[in-house]
Amino acid sequence: MTLKAYGEFDLIQRIRERIQGDDPDLVIGPGDDTAAVRHTPGSLSLLSTDTFVEGLDFLEEFSSWHQIGWKCMAANVSDIAAMAGRPRFALVSMCLPDETEIVAVDHLCDGMVDLARQYGVLIIGGDLSGTPGPLTISITIMGEVAPNQVIRRSGAEAGDRICVTGELGGAEAGLRLLQASTDEPLNGILPDDYANVLSRHRTPRPRTEEGRIIADSGCVGAMIDISDGLSADILHIGKESGVGIALDASRLPLNTAAARTASLLEIDPISLAMNSGEEFELVCTVSRAQADTLCQKVYDETGTRMSVIGEVVPQALGNTWLHGNTTHQLNAGGYDHFRK
Amino acid sequence: MTLKAYGEFDLIQRIRERIQGDDPDLVIGPGDDTAAVRHTPGSLSLLSTDTFVEGLDFLEEFSSWHQIGWKCMAANVSDIAAMAGRPRFALVSMCLPDETEIVAVDHLCDGMVDLARQYGVLIIGGDLSGTPGPLTISITIMGEVAPNQVIRRSGAEAGDRICVTGELGGAEAGLRLLQASTDEPLNGILPDDYANVLSRHRTPRPRTEEGRIIADSGCVGAMIDISDGLSADILHIGKESGVGIALDASRLPLNTAAARTASLLEIDPISLAMNSGEEFELVCTVSRAQADTLCQKVYDETGTRMSVIGEVVPQALGNTWLHGNTTHQLNAGGYDHFRK
Repeated sequence: MTLKAYGEFDLIQRIRERIQGDDPDLVIGPGDDTAAVRHTPGSLSLLSTDTFVEGLDFLEEFSSWHQIGWKCMAANVSDIAAMAGRPRFALVSMCLPDETEIVAVDHLCDGMVDLARQYGVLIIGGDLSGTPGPLTISITIMGEVAPNQVIRRSGAEAGDRICVTGELGGAEAGLRLLQASTDEPLNGILPDDYANVLSRHRTPRPRTEEGRIIADSGCVGAMIDISDGLSADILHIGKESGVGIALDASRLPLNTAAARTASLLEIDPISLAMNSGEEFELVCTVSRAQADTLCQKVYDETGTRMSVIGEVVPQALGNTWLHGNTTHQLNAGGYDHFRK
Repeated sequence: MTLKAYGEFDLIQRIRERIQGDDPDLVIGPGDDTAAVRHTPGSLSLLSTDTFVEGLDFLEEFSSWHQIGWKCMAANVSDIAAMAGRPRFALVSMCLPDETEIVAVDHLCDGMVDLARQYGVLIIGGDLSGTPGPLTISITIMGEVAPNQVIRRSGAEAGDRICVTGELGGAEAGLRLLQASTDEPLNGILPDDYANVLSRHRTPRPRTEEGRIIADSGCVGAMIDISDGLSADILHIGKESGVGIALDASRLPLNTAAARTASLLEIDPISLAMNSGEEFELVCTVSRAQADTLCQKVYDETGTRMSVIGEVVPQALGNTWLHGNTTHQLNAGGYDHFRK
């Protein structure tokens, strides 16, 4: 059954049932002019919004609706993680073409709710609209953080180490594999590698717990999550902090499955690690003396590897990456919505 | 110049300059992973989101981009007014087709900012995306309210009077006039009427101040703003409160210019008042003994007329509207995004 047969208010009711949940700080949930929430006294509210357009940000051929919903919510939760915050509440707007299947909306909501529940997030409102264009999902997330724990992009200092959680390249490798496989089924990829990079592309896991440990350490100056690609996102830290960035390609934690995928697809593995977007790993700058200790601590407490991949330098030294004995200029290689 | 010639990050920078402003409670503004704000201690945060799609919710032929921006922000502010809250901060997501003129984006932002500034709202973040579909604007607004002042849809009681701020019909009359005038210029409309109904359609003014006075009175059980039309919106109060609604058509405060427009266009004026959407007037239920006093108080303090238009009845009596000596069943006649 498609939306055409369904009224707006019936669909709202159907969605409300799927998203429902409790939170002691939720005073008014979906169904009034606004939602109303209480705050942890003294905390700051963190607010961010991210929009996803079918055909640009996701494809029905590459992911299930459940996975699409999961990933849209994950991208928002990741922004809260990048501020070292605790995600709390979300609002979801959807523009739905007439021919959208009701079951697709069901699965989309279920995917959002699954990610949200695992991260302590409750969907408390939203908006539905028709559209003659592509299905579009816009999520606004609200989190909270103690004022002395929030980590901005602007706190990096020359001499700091640059660290990254997890591994890189998997999300882009998964996407490339799907793109390559639409022409003909791809041989030569190991089943485990296939599952690994596809899950990195389809169902990323934001690093909220790692972000909290990083904030607790008190030795981190700046942080961002990798949504556009490491090269683009680390340069945001450089710009906002007024410093230069020096990455060491030999230290990039390239995902092994991504490396084998890159080899199969004849993609440069370093470029993959540098520019893979939607990784949702955290990049942070850590005072030199404490970087190794923090990496160990994050690993011990969460099982997530954290690696030193470079250092912050004075702005006059520019932005570079070292490959073998050669130093290259570091440019943003990530995704830009308007320049194609 | 169109967006194609512009990069995403240049456009973000351009927009940031247009929206910038200060608020003592804004700790982190646009340009980080999230914004961060402080709260008035003990207040509740009100959160709501509204999406607007070109071709469905607005037309470039009918309004300037400045007016479109104004109205999108007004609709969001109105939701805060409907909870008797104070609007504070907004996040704006825009999906922009490649061929969008940069100057259109400028005017859109200026319109949002103009409305926002007049109502004490600061834009603190957002997201930009391309789209192969229509230009789409999604705004999330955050407001605040003291817990004992918030007014929900669910507090109406049988015996309460139903009151509405301002006048009705103007927004729909303005839209109808624009629709009629695209075929041939319309004769017979007075210039003042034309200006009046067009401004009601294009640049509505949310009733935040009236909402505050209504909340202060302590005698209002339920409130909603008119976005889908009086008939649809008052039935939300009825449903959420478990009561019936009895409107009196003779008491509807029909906008005089709208009445003359209705006559010219051969539209039923009562239907116009009942179903005109995007009026952004407040409808509330007031204890019987205090309704007239509250109407007078709102008028004295704001210059906005407030009228008694019916009463809340036991649910068993159903939903009705009285016209002359005849009682009709009251049905939602407003806008539904999926049923056309």
